Amino acid sequence: MYKLIDKINSPKDLKKLSYDDLNKLSKEIRNFLLSSISKTGGHLASNLGIVELSLAVHKVFNSPRDKIIWDVGHQAYVHKIITGRKDKFDTLRQYKGISGFPKSKESVHDSFETGHSSTSISAGLGMAMARDIKGEKYSVLSIIGDGALTGGMAFEALNHAGHSETDFIVILNDNEMSISENVGGLSKYLNRLRTDPTYYKVKDDVEQILSKIPAIGKSVVKTAQKAKETIKYFFVPGVLFEELGFTYIGPVNGHDIGELTKVLERAKKMKGPIIIHTITKKGKGYRFAEKYPDKYHGISAFDIKTGKKIKKAEDKTYSEILGDTLVDIAESNPDIVAITAAMPSGTGLNKFENKYPERFFDVGIAEQHAVTFAAGLASNGLRPVFAVYSTFLQRGYDQVLHDVCLQNLPVVFCIDRAGIVGQDGETHHGVFDFSYLSNIPNLKVLAPRDGNELEIMIRYAFNQNSPIAIRYPRGISKDIDVKNDSDDIYNEKAEVIQKGKDFCFIAVGKMVKTALEVAKLLEKSDISSTVINARFVKPIDKETILSNIKDIDNIITLEDNVAIGGFGSQISNMLNTNGIKNKNIKVLAFPDEFVEHGDTELLFKHHKLDTESIYKEILDMIKE
Amino acid sequence: MYKLIDKINSPKDLKKLSYDDLNKLSKEIRNFLLSSISKTGGHLASNLGIVELSLAVHKVFNSPRDKIIWDVGHQAYVHKIITGRKDKFDTLRQYKGISGFPKSKESVHDSFETGHSSTSISAGLGMAMARDIKGEKYSVLSIIGDGALTGGMAFEALNHAGHSETDFIVILNDNEMSISENVGGLSKYLNRLRTDPTYYKVKDDVEQILSKIPAIGKSVVKTAQKAKETIKYFFVPGVLFEELGFTYIGPVNGHDIGELTKVLERAKKMKGPIIIHTITKKGKGYRFAEKYPDKYHGISAFDIKTGKKIKKAEDKTYSEILGDTLVDIAESNPDIVAITAAMPSGTGLNKFENKYPERFFDVGIAEQHAVTFAAGLASNGLRPVFAVYSTFLQRGYDQVLHDVCLQNLPVVFCIDRAGIVGQDGETHHGVFDFSYLSNIPNLKVLAPRDGNELEIMIRYAFNQNSPIAIRYPRGISKDIDVKNDSDDIYNEKAEVIQKGKDFCFIAVGKMVKTALEVAKLLEKSDISSTVINARFVKPIDKETILSNIKDIDNIITLEDNVAIGGFGSQISNMLNTNGIKNKNIKVLAFPDEFVEHGDTELLFKHHKLDTESIYKEILDMIKE
Repeated sequence: MYKLIDKINSPKDLKKLSYDDLNKLSKEIRNFLLSSISKTGGHLASNLGIVELSLAVHKVFNSPRDKIIWDVGHQAYVHKIITGRKDKFDTLRQYKGISGFPKSKESVHDSFETGHSSTSISAGLGMAMARDIKGEKYSVLSIIGDGALTGGMAFEALNHAGHSETDFIVILNDNEMSISENVGGLSKYLNRLRTDPTYYKVKDDVEQILSKIPAIGKSVVKTAQKAKETIKYFFVPGVLFEELGFTYIGPVNGHDIGELTKVLERAKKMKGPIIIHTITKKGKGYRFAEKYPDKYHGISAFDIKTGKKIKKAEDKTYSEILGDTLVDIAESNPDIVAITAAMPSGTGLNKFENKYPERFFDVGIAEQHAVTFAAGLASNGLRPVFAVYSTFLQRGYDQVLHDVCLQNLPVVFCIDRAGIVGQDGETHHGVFDFSYLSNIPNLKVLAPRDGNELEIMIRYAFNQNSPIAIRYPRGISKDIDVKNDSDDIYNEKAEVIQKGKDFCFIAVGKMVKTALEVAKLLEKSDISSTVINARFVKPIDKETILSNIKDIDNIITLEDNVAIGGFGSQISNMLNTNGIKNKNIKVLAFPDEFVEHGDTELLFKHHKLDTESIYKEILDMIKE
Repeated sequence: MYKLIDKINSPKDLKKLSYDDLNKLSKEIRNFLLSSISKTGGHLASNLGIVELSLAVHKVFNSPRDKIIWDVGHQAYVHKIITGRKDKFDTLRQYKGISGFPKSKESVHDSFETGHSSTSISAGLGMAMARDIKGEKYSVLSIIGDGALTGGMAFEALNHAGHSETDFIVILNDNEMSISENVGGLSKYLNRLRTDPTYYKVKDDVEQILSKIPAIGKSVVKTAQKAKETIKYFFVPGVLFEELGFTYIGPVNGHDIGELTKVLERAKKMKGPIIIHTITKKGKGYRFAEKYPDKYHGISAFDIKTGKKIKKAEDKTYSEILGDTLVDIAESNPDIVAITAAMPSGTGLNKFENKYPERFFDVGIAEQHAVTFAAGLASNGLRPVFAVYSTFLQRGYDQVLHDVCLQNLPVVFCIDRAGIVGQDGETHHGVFDFSYLSNIPNLKVLAPRDGNELEIMIRYAFNQNSPIAIRYPRGISKDIDVKNDSDDIYNEKAEVIQKGKDFCFIAVGKMVKTALEVAKLLEKSDISSTVINARFVKPIDKETILSNIKDIDNIITLEDNVAIGGFGSQISNMLNTNGIKNKNIKVLAFPDEFVEHGDTELLFKHHKLDTESIYKEILDMIKE
């Protein structure tokens, strides 16, 4: 089926291929990506868009001697195919299979691990400067999308790199998209570079134009004379980057291997920091992905011919519950505004965006700004909600603390993808949020047991006059068949779902369901359990918990967060502070290590946080 | 003594003053600042530099209707003087006195609280957009330094603001400085705007030059025709900001009240996002501060005539110990490189900078980039240390976790100003670091009991092949007179400083000294104590702690961090996990609230973490 692709086992094998062969190879790679990702799921559109660029980079540069850093890293599939991992693509993103992101343990060609956006220029600059200090010689390249460039740390790194004299190449993969359409002043600027042929052409003509300037009318001669040097500067396209100290090359057609190769060869010989502006099309070569690149950004298994998902979700996801609830509340409350950092559909805010466009803000991949922007909105009387993935809010830790909570501003954080996210793995699991949020004064931290409770908690949150964080998992909510009492939530009370005399579960979030399942198994062994849904990680409802554990010796806490600084740790401290002694308390949580990628259920099992393992653990605990 | 200043009780009182009077008032304010800060200490140079700008802003705009946001906020003294707080300046930064930063509880004129850098554009944009949504009419201004502009979130906010159509004014207070000299591509760019008169003049002539362009030689006519619009664009100074969508005005002499007033009046009427570039001199009007603006940035009481500090430190500060130790180790280890985010002297790195300039990096106010840049250096074989204040590393939480610790890279974090920093107050205390660092896998977290132990810990850190965080307090180290065993530290062992049978202290960092003091008091009541210096907050030395508490019923943990997720919380969980029951354990730490400003000792006392209070607490505990 594949004539060329099967011969490529390392970047070296690209060197001898003609442009014609490379173009054929591109086609084969696209077919391979489609066939493979349509079965396993994964990041499709970004990889379809970067085929030629990946080939050109590996043709011109010599990895692993030359260092290539893929920003975000979900677009490194083509790189993985070229660097000897093609045969493992049927295990992509699966438990014990290859990762969807660069991983140094997979290949020497993965020189720096990525996952979160906007880190590659910092990392690449560090590698380039280390090279200089050690007196070594090779190229360092960071490949970054225009979306990732809106992240502040990319700018911090450009600012540093621009005044260094280090040889360092940044390749801007400009596809006008973050996961959804890219936003902001920078995006508009790139669009001008992209669409105005003058920008591209004018560079060669600058010298000629300048030579005529002294002939211009006398009144401006003096100014013009002096301006000559600066005009030259301003004339060059990419002035924004040039002003920061980069040499700008581009724009270059990112699907033309010949042109790319020439430009990269040229850049390889140039000195100092260089930025190459390539224009690519996200989803290139697959019509559905070209038309809806956001839908085909990260996708589960689908049918290539129809483009449709093979398994269609029937129930509502937590994200959809957020979206629907917000749309509903916002109708009667005109002060509610919603913010996303480049994730309108992932977070479920798209319905809100459609209904209330003037009250919706997509700030780009810029979580820090998103949080403080929310603080500004709140301080001037509005009720902002920032919907964000747990792992990405880590970027805004300082802003949550310093800009929102210090002033006790009523910002609602709806934190999606908390706990285990599955296939995206260690860079994306949201297992730290209880820990990094709970230490912040004034912030209330909640986790719903199911989608129904999420809805009530959102309504509760907008009823408060202080900052609230609600965190919930990825995917579909399987509601617990026990009626929820919304008054209780408004009163910040934990919920006692069932009462038993032998054992007590204090669980939070989706682990409440697990607790109920384990309790059912225990019943068969004649062990009757109390199951408490804590709801609030902060403030903990001491009263309910203390009164319900009084006569029970064995207690476990359950959460899908790391143990250190997490929910169970706070429960155990609370018991301690309240003089509760003589009890066996076990904190079940994720351990102090990074959790790998793979199917969520397998990961829970691996860490003994599934129903069966917890059941056994409890039997052992009671025996002791 | 002051003719004018005493008549200014609110911004309204400025409206009637002539330019001449305003200039006289500026002089008086400078004298007042000098006289006042020379007694109380505080931020001098930045406030001397912003006198005219503060007056002009309050003359033209109407606070509190118009919203003024001071980035960082340490330059808001003049604003405080004008807005009715002049008479409280003798209490500046003192316990229960006025804060050195904007505080909404002090005045309605402090519309948004600041402290950390680079937040004002995000906050201002939020306020402006809230105004628009509510259909209100007034101006919103963010005043930001060129140093703060290097922080990534300022760029994220510019990017967002630039494509909005909101009326919003950013005033760039360009004094070429962060705390020390400003760095980076942006700084070079601003310098060109500043020093090249053409930039300023050329704007008025643009139209004229453009009108001549069609006359230029035929060969370039087509290009030039199309280029006409774009040339106009490029001709305008401040193109970097214009490209992002701002209207740029400047540069303007920031000490010329007349010019400033005119420009502000103009900006007030303009539409959309505006950036006004003002040039000021940090330290203006006081020769010592003009010459050494970094030394006179934040300063303790000093003699106005000589410029010298009234109390001179005799012992070494923790920062100096870091600097000296690093210089020493780096001599034999050429792989050691050091990074600061605009704090070369505050962190004690200046000695290292002088001795090894090629191995020293000041990246600007850019903690996120600093951390990932360190990861890049480490991943390519070097041994970077990032010296940073505890409160500012909050900005890099995600990068520490995702870019350094996930790859287990050997970056050393030397975390200064941990615990209580005193006068800078709630925005600057480093009381969260144990909590936000301990939840990160692979990271070891240490705190030395004194300067001597800090030195050993730094040497230990460079001996490890994984990420290490060492956090230590502000100020002078008063060494404990007990010999320290460096082998023990290399073996990651806690230290048992004294053994007793009745009581056990498990303390960490500077609280070890407090524990020893309390233990001495207890001796007088015939209570003999064990005092353990934990050294490692992570990994906890279980063995030493468990074997030493075996026969002791009453235990307290001591730390200068918040309780939630902190050291004591982890000790108490460790005891719990190891089945230790029937003991009284108290976690003494800062409570779940923001700690105000003031003298460090008073703050410890207020929170009952001083020797006397702990002594009483223990007597009560034992009585129970």
